[in-house]
Amino acid sequence: MRGNLAVCAARRYWPYCLTFLLLVTIYHVYQWGVRLQQIPTIIVITPTHKRPERLADMTRFSQTLSHVKHLHWVVIEDGNHTVDIVQRILDRSGLPYVYFFATTEPGFPRRGWTHRNQGLAYVRKNYKNFNRPAVVYFADDDNSYDIRLFDKYIRNVKTIGIWAVGLSGTALVEAPHVVNGTIVGWDVVYAPKRKFATDMAGFAVNLDLILKSNASFHRGCIKTVPESCFLQQFNIPKENVQPFGFDDDPKEVLVWHTKTRNIGTKGGNHGYIVE
Amino acid sequence: MRGNLAVCAARRYWPYCLTFLLLVTIYHVYQWGVRLQQIPTIIVITPTHKRPERLADMTRFSQTLSHVKHLHWVVIEDGNHTVDIVQRILDRSGLPYVYFFATTEPGFPRRGWTHRNQGLAYVRKNYKNFNRPAVVYFADDDNSYDIRLFDKYIRNVKTIGIWAVGLSGTALVEAPHVVNGTIVGWDVVYAPKRKFATDMAGFAVNLDLILKSNASFHRGCIKTVPESCFLQQFNIPKENVQPFGFDDDPKEVLVWHTKTRNIGTKGGNHGYIVE
Repeated sequence: MRGNLAVCAARRYWPYCLTFLLLVTIYHVYQWGVRLQQIPTIIVITPTHKRPERLADMTRFSQTLSHVKHLHWVVIEDGNHTVDIVQRILDRSGLPYVYFFATTEPGFPRRGWTHRNQGLAYVRKNYKNFNRPAVVYFADDDNSYDIRLFDKYIRNVKTIGIWAVGLSGTALVEAPHVVNGTIVGWDVVYAPKRKFATDMAGFAVNLDLILKSNASFHRGCIKTVPESCFLQQFNIPKENVQPFGFDDDPKEVLVWHTKTRNIGTKGGNHGYIVE
Repeated sequence: MRGNLAVCAARRYWPYCLTFLLLVTIYHVYQWGVRLQQIPTIIVITPTHKRPERLADMTRFSQTLSHVKHLHWVVIEDGNHTVDIVQRILDRSGLPYVYFFATTEPGFPRRGWTHRNQGLAYVRKNYKNFNRPAVVYFADDDNSYDIRLFDKYIRNVKTIGIWAVGLSGTALVEAPHVVNGTIVGWDVVYAPKRKFATDMAGFAVNLDLILKSNASFHRGCIKTVPESCFLQQFNIPKENVQPFGFDDDPKEVLVWHTKTRNIGTKGGNHGYIVE
């Protein structure tokens, strides 16, 4: 290369050298574009509903997500209209998002079931012809997310990915039990015999699988556990799903199923926007 | 200017023109530095203690603070040693920070009093000769902060600044009652007759005032309300403190006194780092 470039010292070769340099630059810009196209998009589905702590939780959550690149936020309001101040939080996040509302389908559990299904329907419709990789993740607005969860775990999910969740249910931490890189069981307190003993925050599914299936939180799931019922519909045994974080050193929890305590509801709003 | 620059077209003036341009550039870089120096530093004092939800809260909080520039984070562990995984959260935040520990002084309330005093002592020692503006803010790790709080409110505090806090105590929102730009009372549920009826998250104090006083959460405050006892020591009547946010449209809450519900403590840690 250096020898070849030496000829550029001669003035008469300058036009050829310049053309060569431009071609090299164009090639590298093209390669950069190709690499960008291969970065999987993370589609985050968030059901949300009006409650006094919601604005605090959504603000915190939006500021967490705004650290993550290549993310599309699908937010579904539980109600019969969207809410202005929530819309403003989404606008301020700087993230690409869609925000719509849905009321709970009759006979379905409240809070989330219908809305996650609506989120899945949105994804199946709008990502049908998406010719780039993507991963779908259900993220509630009151959980706590370490931003490494998105780039280290979720973005690398090729089929179904599963990881530890802190403060899940009544447990300090719930995690897949992994031996030689394979999930052989579940280190959980509640119902360890479930096929997929994971919290909603503890898994993500590649878009390809979502598009190839009709998996949802359907009526048949109502008397069972929603996460396990949903994941079984992809017909992938737990031994073939991807565990994350089990071989990290130190082994860290990157997502916690937290809940904000509700206490502050007395007194007026004094002109401030509250819910 | 354009006429003057026209002479640069003559080749013999090039050295003078170049010198002139360099001088202009140096002047602008100098002015830029001067402006940077005038941006007040926000010194955030955070007491923290080991509990199952702490890693979730500190992770969330660090990711919020990492959006804020010109901030120095003073974190005081309630205990007799600092904690590795907390230190790693602080490291990852990318913020300048200091992290040290203190045990509760005998006879003092637990959780925070001693640690905020230690934070103030650190500030008085290390910012004694700080010749730039700065503001001190007490921020607990489980509250919820809209990042606009820092740049719109805290950074503009010249003496004492006070603003609304959501979910404070049992109230939906507590705020200073402002008439014609002056605080005339307190829109609160609990003890409205306090001199300063504000939550710990609802005020900040300019560094100059901190350095000129010995204000602290001292023994005499123990039987009273800490925020009001602390703020009275600056001898500034409430009518002369700066209210923020009261004239915004819409009137928004930028900080909430949230608490993460503690439920998840059953089961083992399965090799994961927990508290």
